Amino acid sequence: MIDQHGGNIDVARARHGGDGWIDLSTGINRRAYPIPPIPAEAWTMLPTAAAKAGLGQAAAQAYATTAAIVALPGAQAAIQLLPHLRPRGIARLLGPTYQDYGRVLRAAGWRVEQVADPAALVGADLALVVNPNNPDGRHHDPADLLALVGQVGLLVVDESFADAVPHLSLAPQAGRDGLLVLRSFGKFYGLAGVRLGFALGAAPLIEHLSALAGPWPVSGAAIAIGCVALADAAWTAATIARLAQEAPRLDALAIGAGWSVVGGTALFRLYHTPDAAAAQERLARHAIWSRRFGYSAHWLRLGLPGDRAEWARLAAAVTD
Amino acid sequence: MIDQHGGNIDVARARHGGDGWIDLSTGINRRAYPIPPIPAEAWTMLPTAAAKAGLGQAAAQAYATTAAIVALPGAQAAIQLLPHLRPRGIARLLGPTYQDYGRVLRAAGWRVEQVADPAALVGADLALVVNPNNPDGRHHDPADLLALVGQVGLLVVDESFADAVPHLSLAPQAGRDGLLVLRSFGKFYGLAGVRLGFALGAAPLIEHLSALAGPWPVSGAAIAIGCVALADAAWTAATIARLAQEAPRLDALAIGAGWSVVGGTALFRLYHTPDAAAAQERLARHAIWSRRFGYSAHWLRLGLPGDRAEWARLAAAVTD
Repeated sequence: MIDQHGGNIDVARARHGGDGWIDLSTGINRRAYPIPPIPAEAWTMLPTAAAKAGLGQAAAQAYATTAAIVALPGAQAAIQLLPHLRPRGIARLLGPTYQDYGRVLRAAGWRVEQVADPAALVGADLALVVNPNNPDGRHHDPADLLALVGQVGLLVVDESFADAVPHLSLAPQAGRDGLLVLRSFGKFYGLAGVRLGFALGAAPLIEHLSALAGPWPVSGAAIAIGCVALADAAWTAATIARLAQEAPRLDALAIGAGWSVVGGTALFRLYHTPDAAAAQERLARHAIWSRRFGYSAHWLRLGLPGDRAEWARLAAAVTD
Repeated sequence: MIDQHGGNIDVARARHGGDGWIDLSTGINRRAYPIPPIPAEAWTMLPTAAAKAGLGQAAAQAYATTAAIVALPGAQAAIQLLPHLRPRGIARLLGPTYQDYGRVLRAAGWRVEQVADPAALVGADLALVVNPNNPDGRHHDPADLLALVGQVGLLVVDESFADAVPHLSLAPQAGRDGLLVLRSFGKFYGLAGVRLGFALGAAPLIEHLSALAGPWPVSGAAIAIGCVALADAAWTAATIARLAQEAPRLDALAIGAGWSVVGGTALFRLYHTPDAAAAQERLARHAIWSRRFGYSAHWLRLGLPGDRAEWARLAAAVTD
């Protein structure tokens, strides 16, 4: 089944029945950061300027940047606001990539073009690169992307899957005019329900985005959790190390099933299968949910399983 | 001190020092709904379509409506999206009222006019009534507001403070074309940090708003909490009864201090004082924070204190 988004596990359940589904249809870490205690005031009070500044500082440290930062309810919220940041014009997306960019920009009256080569982005009013890319993991040297700044109206670099590859990140350069860097919190930390993400850029751009988002876009709980998690360098390092071992392990399972590796990131892998619909169906019979794409009859994307039991179930399912 | 918004208690603390502040600068209930257990999946997973539908059903029941509903991160989030719902034009606001309407619409290129008489709203591309109004509690018969539908491009009725006065609500009629009703969750339930509110209207309008907001605007925790709280009719009834007793009690304290009652709602009261700056300062010396308004040297708004100790401190402060 080809959904607009991964993660809609209730749809899989309705279609295939059964309980205990393992949702590998997203790139959300299944070994989530442990939820810290949440102070009562995080629920009862409007987030204060001080709380928001504290979260911004934690994010700045985690992302190694001195650029201006605004927290939003997910990187998705930044995508929703993009069309309103500049007068309508031509948007070029390096693709195929996360489809909501095209959908959101088109709905707001932008002309949207998908290009395959970064050089073809030049001249666009808004240019979008997801680095590393979803779903194929294609990645770009930050210096090459930086060279595009000034050659497009606004360069948006979505680093939703960059936590495990900090050397790819443009966050340290995000203060440059004409550059907007987006970060996701929920994917790497496994806390997508928290709804937290960040936009990094030059101060006037971030002030504009912040004015569009309003004074209290993220919850007090998101602020409390984000402050703790983003400051936990030990957890981050351990998670990067774990993912570096487990992504090849997932590839090995897939290759054993007769699939080939298209690419991927630390959090998900993209496989070429003989028949993606059949492969998805086979996994679904084991209550494992995967992701297909409308533009390919062969591509199947899998997130990394969480605990040992999930790995065992996946191993059994792919060789069924 | 005249802030853009109430609730920024850290600013009061920085200015006046001290600890243990009682924040009466907002209309947020200080006896909050108790936070129910939050399932782990609410943090880890993207909110599913089923979870969102469940929240919508709870809201529909609480607000006695069959209109389409979208949950947003606060009524504020709906305000932020209003300018993008229709082509730019003339917005008329029945005021004075919550100032963000004017600010957000102006920033998006709308011409904004404040009018004092509902009849003067006629002919606007977008007309806004807050019912009951913030800060003065002015309220309007729903039938009178309904008569405006069709005489303006879009009638927006902000019912952020209507929970205690359901007979004033247009939610049951929100399915009408040309009408958008906004509800706040955080104020009445005392959970402003949760960031939850709702927009109610005809299906195409709500679908448009939902497309602007994106697929996952509210957190899993907000959905879990909202589902429980909105279904708790006993708590709602008890809270309405308590507030009905306590608002006059606050008025009596104010009158004892030589102030007069301008108006208010169940959650806040607006007073005419000889000198609002001096009155705010006097309360601040007792670490009680209040709300002033740029357009009046006399108006001071107070939320209702929470427990017995807060009432005692306020009583001592106003007669200091």
